[in-house]
Amino acid sequence: MKNYDVTIIGAGAAGLTAGLYSARNGLKTAIISKDIGGTANSILMLENWPGFNGKGSELMKQIYEQVRKYEIDFIMSEVDSIEKVESKTEKEFLIKAKKEMITSKSIIIATGTDRKKLGIEGEDELLGRGVSYCVTCDAFFFKNKDVAVIGGSDCAATSALALSDISKNVYLIYRGEKLKCEELNQKRLNERKNVKIFYNTIPKAIIGKEKVEELEITNEGKKGNLKVDGIFIEIGSTPLIEFSKKLKLKLDKENFIKVNENMQTSIEGIFAAGDITSHKLKQVVVSAGQGAVAAKSVYTWLKGGINKW
Amino acid sequence: MKNYDVTIIGAGAAGLTAGLYSARNGLKTAIISKDIGGTANSILMLENWPGFNGKGSELMKQIYEQVRKYEIDFIMSEVDSIEKVESKTEKEFLIKAKKEMITSKSIIIATGTDRKKLGIEGEDELLGRGVSYCVTCDAFFFKNKDVAVIGGSDCAATSALALSDISKNVYLIYRGEKLKCEELNQKRLNERKNVKIFYNTIPKAIIGKEKVEELEITNEGKKGNLKVDGIFIEIGSTPLIEFSKKLKLKLDKENFIKVNENMQTSIEGIFAAGDITSHKLKQVVVSAGQGAVAAKSVYTWLKGGINKW
Repeated sequence: MKNYDVTIIGAGAAGLTAGLYSARNGLKTAIISKDIGGTANSILMLENWPGFNGKGSELMKQIYEQVRKYEIDFIMSEVDSIEKVESKTEKEFLIKAKKEMITSKSIIIATGTDRKKLGIEGEDELLGRGVSYCVTCDAFFFKNKDVAVIGGSDCAATSALALSDISKNVYLIYRGEKLKCEELNQKRLNERKNVKIFYNTIPKAIIGKEKVEELEITNEGKKGNLKVDGIFIEIGSTPLIEFSKKLKLKLDKENFIKVNENMQTSIEGIFAAGDITSHKLKQVVVSAGQGAVAAKSVYTWLKGGINKW
Repeated sequence: MKNYDVTIIGAGAAGLTAGLYSARNGLKTAIISKDIGGTANSILMLENWPGFNGKGSELMKQIYEQVRKYEIDFIMSEVDSIEKVESKTEKEFLIKAKKEMITSKSIIIATGTDRKKLGIEGEDELLGRGVSYCVTCDAFFFKNKDVAVIGGSDCAATSALALSDISKNVYLIYRGEKLKCEELNQKRLNERKNVKIFYNTIPKAIIGKEKVEELEITNEGKKGNLKVDGIFIEIGSTPLIEFSKKLKLKLDKENFIKVNENMQTSIEGIFAAGDITSHKLKQVVVSAGQGAVAAKSVYTWLKGGINKW
C-alpha cells in the first residue's frame, strides 16, 4: 500500500493549487479525484480570474498541464471512506478509493460541490430530455428554442446570458425579488431583448411526455404554464462530503466544512480548501488561494510547526 | 471633489483583483497606487500562480490589461492620509493623495510591503553601487561577477538561483540553520556548483570605497570577509501603512493589518487584502483571492448586509 505525506481529494482550482504547492514543497503527494477541473469546468465565460478571459475548462486545462509536470500521483477515482489509523509509532489516515487504497499522513479535502436539485415532479424523469444542470454541456441542443433557467445567482445569470445568444426566448425564473448576481450581469440581462425575468416565481412541476414541454410555475399564488423546450436548473450546490461522514468533521448548517484561517478542519491532520469550506464567496480565484494556504499549512504541520485549532 | 463607492489603495495582485470584482459589481471604483503590479513585479520566475509560468511582471501586465477595461479611475499617486468625515447624512472617508483629494464610502487597503533593510554600515552608502534590493532590476550588472544574497526565504533562494545563472559565484548568507524556502528551491540550490550557502552567518558591514568590495560576516563568533561585487538584500518586508497611522487600525506585532475572514479591519468601512494583512502566507495567488473576498465584502457591506466585526 502506497503511503503519502499529503493526499488531496479533488482536482478543481483548490485541489490542483494545493498539489502544486505541496509538490514544490517536496511532499510526497497524491491527488484523488473523479475528474480534473471541478466546478470551474462548467463556467462558460470566466472573466474574473485575474489575467485570464475565456472558458473555465480552458483555464483548468492550463493549470492541470502545469501541475502534472511535478511528481504527483493522480488517482482517478472516487473516495469511499477515510479512517484514522494508529500504530505504536504513527498516526495516519487510511483512504479507501474505488480503485485503490492508500495511507497518508495528512489530507486536504477539496471536493467542492454538486448541483442542487429542485425536487419537483418531472425533474428526474425528464433529465437529459430537456432538463439539464449544465449549460456548458447542453446549451447547443436548444438553438432557436425556448428555455427556462431557474435560479438567481451569478451562475443562473451567466447561464441565461449564454443561452440568450443561441436560444429564441430565455425565461429566468427566480423565487426572490432581486437577483443575487453581479450588477454587471444584471445590467446585461436587462439589455437582452429575448430574456424575460420572472421574480417571486416558484417552479412547481416539469411537464412532458417524451421530453420537456412545459414548466408549471406559481407567481404570488397565481398558477401558470410556460411552454419551453429546455429547463436549466441553477439553484446552487451542496458540499460533497459523503465519504467524510464517519470522521465527524465540524460542519456549518449547510454541511460545508468549518476551517480556521490556516484551512485546518476540526480534526488534526485534515485540512480543507475551496467551495467545500464554509467560506461564503465561492469563486475560482478564492479557491486557488485557499489551496495554496492549505498546502502551506500541511507542510508546516508535518514539520511540527503549526498549532492545533 | 470626486466621490467613490470604494477606493482601493495599491495595484498589486490584491488591489487589481479587488478592482476587477468591484467594477463588475457596479461600484464606482478608484484605485490609487504609485505603481502597477506591486511585489509580484519583482518575481523572476513565477511558477506557482496556477495556469501561468513566467515573469511576475508579465502576469501583472496581463491582469492590468484585463482590469483597465472596466470603468475604474486609476490615480497614480501616493496616499498621504485617510480621515473619517461625518456629515448629518453620511459617513465617509477623505483620502488625500499627493496629486488629488477624493472621498469614498469604503476603502480596501492593499498596499503590500516594502523591503526590509539590514541596518549595517555601508548599506545606505553603497546603495546602487553594488547594494541592491531587487535581483530582477539589477542582476544583469553582475554578469560573471561574485555576489552575495542575504536571507533564507523563497525570495532569497530564487534570487540566488537566478543570479547563479549569470554570476560567477553566489554566496547565500543566512543567520539560521536551515533555509525557510520551498524544498524544491533548496534542492536546486544544492545542485548549483557556483552557489555556496553560509548558515548561522550574520552580515556585519558592507565595505567599499566607490563601490562594494567586501562583505564582513561573522559565523558563530568568528569574523571573516567575503570579496564580492554585489550584495542583494532579501530579508523580508515591512507593511506599507504610514498613511493609515492616524486611523488606529488594529495591527499585529509586526504592524500587519488584522482582518477577519471577510477581510474587514477593525474600522467599519475599511477592508484590507494581500501582503499588508496579518495572514502568514505571502503569495500572489493568496493575495488575489483575498482581493476578491474584500471586494465582495465591500459590496455586501455597502448594501447593508454584512455584520460588523
